[in-house]
Amino acid sequence: MRVLVYGAGQLAQMMYLAGCPLGIEVQAVDVGNDTVVHPVSKRPLDTSLAQAIESADALTVEFEHVPERLLEDASKTEKLSPSMNAILVGADRVREKRLLDALNVPNAAHQVVTYIDELEDCVSALGDKLIIKASRDGYDGYGQWRLLEEGQLPEIKQALSNLDLNTVPLVVEQMVNFDRELSLVGVRDKDGDIKVYPLAENLHHQGQLHVSVAPAPHVTDALQKKAEEIFRVLAEGMNYVGVLAVEMFQCGEELLVNELAPRVHNSGHWSMSGSDTSQFENHLRAVVGLPLGDTSARGPSAMVNIIGCSSFSRDLLKISGCHLHWYGKTVREKRKMGHINVTADSYQALGEKLEALCQYVPNEYFPKLGKEARKLKQIEA
Amino acid sequence: MRVLVYGAGQLAQMMYLAGCPLGIEVQAVDVGNDTVVHPVSKRPLDTSLAQAIESADALTVEFEHVPERLLEDASKTEKLSPSMNAILVGADRVREKRLLDALNVPNAAHQVVTYIDELEDCVSALGDKLIIKASRDGYDGYGQWRLLEEGQLPEIKQALSNLDLNTVPLVVEQMVNFDRELSLVGVRDKDGDIKVYPLAENLHHQGQLHVSVAPAPHVTDALQKKAEEIFRVLAEGMNYVGVLAVEMFQCGEELLVNELAPRVHNSGHWSMSGSDTSQFENHLRAVVGLPLGDTSARGPSAMVNIIGCSSFSRDLLKISGCHLHWYGKTVREKRKMGHINVTADSYQALGEKLEALCQYVPNEYFPKLGKEARKLKQIEA
Repeated sequence: MRVLVYGAGQLAQMMYLAGCPLGIEVQAVDVGNDTVVHPVSKRPLDTSLAQAIESADALTVEFEHVPERLLEDASKTEKLSPSMNAILVGADRVREKRLLDALNVPNAAHQVVTYIDELEDCVSALGDKLIIKASRDGYDGYGQWRLLEEGQLPEIKQALSNLDLNTVPLVVEQMVNFDRELSLVGVRDKDGDIKVYPLAENLHHQGQLHVSVAPAPHVTDALQKKAEEIFRVLAEGMNYVGVLAVEMFQCGEELLVNELAPRVHNSGHWSMSGSDTSQFENHLRAVVGLPLGDTSARGPSAMVNIIGCSSFSRDLLKISGCHLHWYGKTVREKRKMGHINVTADSYQALGEKLEALCQYVPNEYFPKLGKEARKLKQIEA
Repeated sequence: MRVLVYGAGQLAQMMYLAGCPLGIEVQAVDVGNDTVVHPVSKRPLDTSLAQAIESADALTVEFEHVPERLLEDASKTEKLSPSMNAILVGADRVREKRLLDALNVPNAAHQVVTYIDELEDCVSALGDKLIIKASRDGYDGYGQWRLLEEGQLPEIKQALSNLDLNTVPLVVEQMVNFDRELSLVGVRDKDGDIKVYPLAENLHHQGQLHVSVAPAPHVTDALQKKAEEIFRVLAEGMNYVGVLAVEMFQCGEELLVNELAPRVHNSGHWSMSGSDTSQFENHLRAVVGLPLGDTSARGPSAMVNIIGCSSFSRDLLKISGCHLHWYGKTVREKRKMGHINVTADSYQALGEKLEALCQYVPNEYFPKLGKEARKLKQIEA
């Protein structure tokens, strides 16, 4: 069997590694030049995009910002999973908000702005603590602005003055006073069967995910159930096939959906060693029509991103249950270079292992690690 | 980092998949024509063998029957692990027996025969129940003959008459009345650190491994310790670096070493999902000088070989904890096509999963499965 993935980054690479044992050959499309490449070496394969589409059993994506002309061609073959519509929901905050509202899924109060002076109306309607987001092509904190008090409005309008809001509207959200960010990664197959991983807690720094812990500590059964119900409504509402990640804000016992990612997701990387079936394997199983695998957690796990840095001691592998996933990319500032998965038998043991990990990696690139280690160590068994 | 593996079969492929996350690029040598190939696609890479040797950080093997001229070239670079000597011990039963005797490792009483009429002396010295093995190029039951009573001697001598015993002597062993076959797979790194997986029980059919269960049921701490001590003596005796598999016969509480495999081994495949660090990852860690990973078992696991058959229901993936490892080869009689790993929380649950597996695979190719399932189900928690 063969699966063609639009996008040739680390997510396609990890799908390739998960597919190989299943007898699934994963090929990747470099969407910058429409070439088909090997997902690990990134070397061009001896096939045209049209041939690769023709010979693939399934088409899928590793990111939502695939050019629409490519998605249209893919969609016509009826081999694309998730659907073009679901992918565009992830790529466009206006579509995303429309879907959440149509399905009555709780999310932050918001307005869509296509004319800059509508910002004043937003302040009247939503208050003067706002997050203003470009509706497209924004990720990892890019294309976002914060209004903390009404007095900043002129300055923000100035910053936004060169945007074409007719083409790319703004989504203006009420700032949510949340306790923490959680994400639910789950998978739905062609028969409608759903399996979800336990909620993960995500720690960000400067707009980028740095650490995920799964299962998230202090999650009640009721909260996990609430998240699963949100997942079900969204996945069924889109007739979704594949892995879907739902980022949520926890506010007390309430969950507000912040963002959807129609693909395998960084906050699900822990599943590579922390669960019986990784999100990559389950995504492939879903899109080619194989039964889904077990998504329960083996024990507490952490996923630690390696961002913008390549020099750290490989002796971190001395830590039992510690695994390196290196993406093989050239180092650049803020670039995700790889991640480290750590599994343990208890949160306390996990905290101790993360504390040990701090010795092997440069502090400045891992600003969330030490504090999270101490926090986990204090969780009672 | 780069590791060059002599041999381009499934073991090299699984090393490739284990190496990628560590940032280790595994290349394979097709020893039939001295070309360097991709371990998964088997397509030739754009490099000569000499260039690949030069650019590799470590050289290793996936099987012991590598032509000696290639091993000699590899050995000269001082990048080969395990050593040429250790590899030849695995390839030659005379060397193997000499090593076992030199290190006082218990094994079946035996004699080396270079002249056919010495077989009568063997009967006098060892009795008339003998296994006669060609000392080289014999595996999976090929190149073996059984003498069950003295009267068969003329017939066996006839069968052996066309062999050149000066070049390839025979190793004649007393037939051992063993309870079962166990294997210990372990790994030793360049600093001499050793980690071993728990003993696996191996079930053969017509000379081929069909099922391994790990940890082997009913193993006392004393027996596991005894096996580990044998492993230590052998690995240290050869100054071994990498994964080494030791096949043993259990006779009561005694262990007799039957065979050494200087490489990752079929009876260690369960470690891919049954242990935190697979034998493939640990082998690579050892040969490139990274710290070894945890080798303890997560719970009872079974490895079921898929031999000579490609048609089975992929619905076996419905069984929780069940993973397919497909090697992508053309089907041939008696050929290892892939394997299925199953993990569970108890032997009983493992037995139930293997019983479920029987529904999805054709009985005639899995003659050991049903009986083993029933046996495991009866083990008390």
